[in-house]
Amino acid sequence: MSTPVTQHSPAQNEAAAPETQSLKSHSLAYVSDEATGIRVPVTEISLEPSPNGQDNKPFRVYRTAGPGSDPVVGLPAFRSGWIVDRGDTEPYSGRERNLLDDGRSAVRRGAASAEWKGAQPVPRRAVGGKTVTQMHYARQGIITPEMQFVALRENCDVELVRSEVAAGRAIIPNNINHPESEPMIIGKAFLVKINANIGNSAITSSIAEEVDKLQWATQWGADTVMDLSTGDDIHTTREWLIRNAPVPIGTVPIYQALEKVNGEANALTWEIFRDTVIEQCEQGVDYMTIHAGVLLRYVPLTADRVTGIVSRGGSIMAGWCLAHHQENFLYTHFDELCEIFARYDVAFSLGDGLRPGSTADANDAAQFAELDTLAELTQRAWEFDVQVMVEGPGHVPFHLVRENVERQQELCKGAPFYTLGPLVTDIAPGYDHITSAIGATEIARYGTAMLCYVTPKEHLGLPNKDDVKTGVITYKIAAHAADLAKGHPGAHERDDALSKARFEFRWRDQFALSLDPVTAEAFHDETLPAEPAKTAHFCSMCGPKFCSMKISQDIRKEYGSADSQAAIAEMYSGMKEKSQEFLAAGGKVYLPELRVPAES
Amino acid sequence: MSTPVTQHSPAQNEAAAPETQSLKSHSLAYVSDEATGIRVPVTEISLEPSPNGQDNKPFRVYRTAGPGSDPVVGLPAFRSGWIVDRGDTEPYSGRERNLLDDGRSAVRRGAASAEWKGAQPVPRRAVGGKTVTQMHYARQGIITPEMQFVALRENCDVELVRSEVAAGRAIIPNNINHPESEPMIIGKAFLVKINANIGNSAITSSIAEEVDKLQWATQWGADTVMDLSTGDDIHTTREWLIRNAPVPIGTVPIYQALEKVNGEANALTWEIFRDTVIEQCEQGVDYMTIHAGVLLRYVPLTADRVTGIVSRGGSIMAGWCLAHHQENFLYTHFDELCEIFARYDVAFSLGDGLRPGSTADANDAAQFAELDTLAELTQRAWEFDVQVMVEGPGHVPFHLVRENVERQQELCKGAPFYTLGPLVTDIAPGYDHITSAIGATEIARYGTAMLCYVTPKEHLGLPNKDDVKTGVITYKIAAHAADLAKGHPGAHERDDALSKARFEFRWRDQFALSLDPVTAEAFHDETLPAEPAKTAHFCSMCGPKFCSMKISQDIRKEYGSADSQAAIAEMYSGMKEKSQEFLAAGGKVYLPELRVPAES
Repeated sequence: MSTPVTQHSPAQNEAAAPETQSLKSHSLAYVSDEATGIRVPVTEISLEPSPNGQDNKPFRVYRTAGPGSDPVVGLPAFRSGWIVDRGDTEPYSGRERNLLDDGRSAVRRGAASAEWKGAQPVPRRAVGGKTVTQMHYARQGIITPEMQFVALRENCDVELVRSEVAAGRAIIPNNINHPESEPMIIGKAFLVKINANIGNSAITSSIAEEVDKLQWATQWGADTVMDLSTGDDIHTTREWLIRNAPVPIGTVPIYQALEKVNGEANALTWEIFRDTVIEQCEQGVDYMTIHAGVLLRYVPLTADRVTGIVSRGGSIMAGWCLAHHQENFLYTHFDELCEIFARYDVAFSLGDGLRPGSTADANDAAQFAELDTLAELTQRAWEFDVQVMVEGPGHVPFHLVRENVERQQELCKGAPFYTLGPLVTDIAPGYDHITSAIGATEIARYGTAMLCYVTPKEHLGLPNKDDVKTGVITYKIAAHAADLAKGHPGAHERDDALSKARFEFRWRDQFALSLDPVTAEAFHDETLPAEPAKTAHFCSMCGPKFCSMKISQDIRKEYGSADSQAAIAEMYSGMKEKSQEFLAAGGKVYLPELRVPAES
Repeated sequence: MSTPVTQHSPAQNEAAAPETQSLKSHSLAYVSDEATGIRVPVTEISLEPSPNGQDNKPFRVYRTAGPGSDPVVGLPAFRSGWIVDRGDTEPYSGRERNLLDDGRSAVRRGAASAEWKGAQPVPRRAVGGKTVTQMHYARQGIITPEMQFVALRENCDVELVRSEVAAGRAIIPNNINHPESEPMIIGKAFLVKINANIGNSAITSSIAEEVDKLQWATQWGADTVMDLSTGDDIHTTREWLIRNAPVPIGTVPIYQALEKVNGEANALTWEIFRDTVIEQCEQGVDYMTIHAGVLLRYVPLTADRVTGIVSRGGSIMAGWCLAHHQENFLYTHFDELCEIFARYDVAFSLGDGLRPGSTADANDAAQFAELDTLAELTQRAWEFDVQVMVEGPGHVPFHLVRENVERQQELCKGAPFYTLGPLVTDIAPGYDHITSAIGATEIARYGTAMLCYVTPKEHLGLPNKDDVKTGVITYKIAAHAADLAKGHPGAHERDDALSKARFEFRWRDQFALSLDPVTAEAFHDETLPAEPAKTAHFCSMCGPKFCSMKISQDIRKEYGSADSQAAIAEMYSGMKEKSQEFLAAGGKVYLPELRVPAES
């Protein structure tokens, strides 16, 4: 097996270096706050002047890739000072490294397949019984640098950030042991976010590939990344990921716990689970999916479903409950989890283990029973000042989507909703990024704060790098469409800038302003590859004579722009004469009125 | 240039022969009505038995590809008898063939590049002043074979078909000169339909490619196809298409009219346009887009838009109006058009020439002014018993989509709405099949009857065969998701059949029941290519130990199926005991109640 360095290099180059002409107009810039000295990376897109000579200012867009990292070195721990300065945490020796954390092949080998050789951070935790969550600070009226960073990023008042976090309506997932991460916020008052799932499995795996997917996903706009590894090297893969992640990393700890008991769900115990959670807290996982709502009494509600239980974590816990005839230990030990999370500032992502796996099972008794329990658990976490989001479906026909978010928002008192799609039909495997983006737009429009992407491989296989990109771009579309629909301040500016470029035949700017400049440029070049076509005042669809944009520009030239009102008025006066002539000639006629369309 | 035969052969083979294992389970079958002798082609999907040995009946799905044709021969004119038997039409010599109909290169050459050599049907028209539209018959209470065919196809009462057509709320686009076409209905009481645009352009073109795209589009489910050719051989390309089209063919006659005047919009006249319309009526075009709502007085309303006028037809007519300072001749001669259409049963597709070309311009004064006029024209066409649908946008942010269809339905008294998307954001060129499918699902949910597809190449280049397929499948998703959301009878059956196959690990059936079995199977095989994986009781995503479906099946085995109620009751009784033990041990507890989830 080649070393990670070798494996990463091409990917890193690919991610770092502009692949096409249009990406060359993208550069890393910073938005700074002089008062605090905080600066937030953004992507700056330089634009060409308009045909009339007018300059178009560089356009800045939200950036999730951070400043970029060398995979074997990792990112700088830029948030460390903020954490230490608060004086409420301490470094400690941490849990002892156990090779079984990486699976039996690591034990055999005496090492993971590619041990992390970068900086080995000493874990921190809250001193004494302190709580070090952003929610805790927010509720005390404290504005943290993390909140200031977020406010700069979202272009909003920092008090909005603080108050939403204090109320539990937003979270800033920022484990104190992930100081490399750039603070971001998940809540319905802010931009809709998207998550990309990566991770190896028993079938295929490589640490290098997963780090590559992380960088690839954030390059295209993933706001958080979940590591869902279930194969070998789980611990070490996660170490590589966290040290390179400018975005929060989420996990589902039950997957690793299950590996530790050789895949036998019945052998799981609270102790093994707890140990796994602490292991991950110390590494810096920012949020964890906890399937504490799968209660023993809800399991039989799924027996008559078309597709039973489709959540991995949900089915593991359901199987455990049935095998032991005991209540879900994640539920019975929930308060202990809260105490742990409070010490590291890990956020709950309350898993919907009973989510529907088909449109037939949507919004059923099992699903909504679990949601009731997730609402109860949300309140309990909040009592510990622990941040919470709540996971949602899944597969839901379009007309039932809205009920999901409205019910969740009501029951969970506005805690951020984080949904997987939902897919609005089951008949299109191979296209479930699309079936789910439709549901995702609808559910985000009504208040879902973060959307978990679905790739074209959903239900069929493991996503490769192309699938990760397709999933991310598709979900950026859904999230942005929802931002537009919500009237989120400034959301329309990118649409308007791109539309203006389109109307002015600034082809390169159209590509550069798009979510995927590489694909846009490639598609254009398939039909009209020559360089002059990038400045042509028409396009391949209609050719020069049919160009509606061109005709439209002529109209504007004659009747729009600077003195448009005068020109229009003048034209109408001409029209009136003409129409009178037309009337005299026996034609049908109307009396035009300036800018007031006549009723039919 | 090779002959069309050679060019078509591979494509035809590709379209006709199953490409993969999973398509082999698809076959052509017929649903018949013994009383009338009418039979409707359907695609029959054979399914494997369930793991419990239970048979799964073959699943039948709506088929738009008809019985299939050899491109150089065309389809049988199976509807001829119905048309002739009504005794209200007559054959006639028709308009004289003019080589300029195929452009100047055909004139130079003395022929189109690949003249149609199949059967040369003699055109028919209504005798005397008769009206031969399906709307005319429906209003007289006559049930035509076309209506019976549609009722069989839609699995509904024929009286629903007749009454909706009579009321103008649905159309059956069936030119009497296109007897090869299988009747289909467009109206909100029926399955949502999709249209695929094809057609050559000045930039690239070939008759063979267009026929190939037609067959390809209908194979994947296009309900109608529009030929938007603007290059050479327009007349002959259309002849090839119509003779091979089992679905209605739509056109935008102004494109060909413009070619006849060498692309100079100002040189267009009503006479040239009228001649082109008659040419196309005689060939068998089933519906035509007529931009009669672009009134002179509306044009200045577009001057301050971000993207002006983006409809080709709309901009041509706007340019003409401005150049001549006269009213749009399509508006002033609208009654004459109605008289012509009534004689061939051509349906209007009232073009929305002022539709928004960016989300910034959505739902503005220009757009809604034109809609008022389209409503007026709908009424006028109905006075002639001519069938009408109304075209809609375009680019509309998600929250403004619904207003479009509700306004159109109200103003146009339920005339079918036929929309292009709409795209819900402008920032994703290269992915506009997705941005538009989101809007399309929303607009169809509220009553849009047909959706015009958008391909990934929209705004960038000309769609190739892959793009046509992606566009069609994406729009089948939107249409079907809307059918589900509307609660259309039986729409969920395919979802449920596929979900059942998924739960039972009948992989081949999952592929076969999907909209695109080829892609589904290929994606599966990328991760688990071996044949045994097609029957594996797990999949690549989680591997055998993590398989939620498997755990879920165990749950059902133990607590579901035949005596599930008894089993569940028994289990609950066991649970109660267990929970009491748990309580005694000091744990937290709840009192489970059968199938009644406790409130949190």
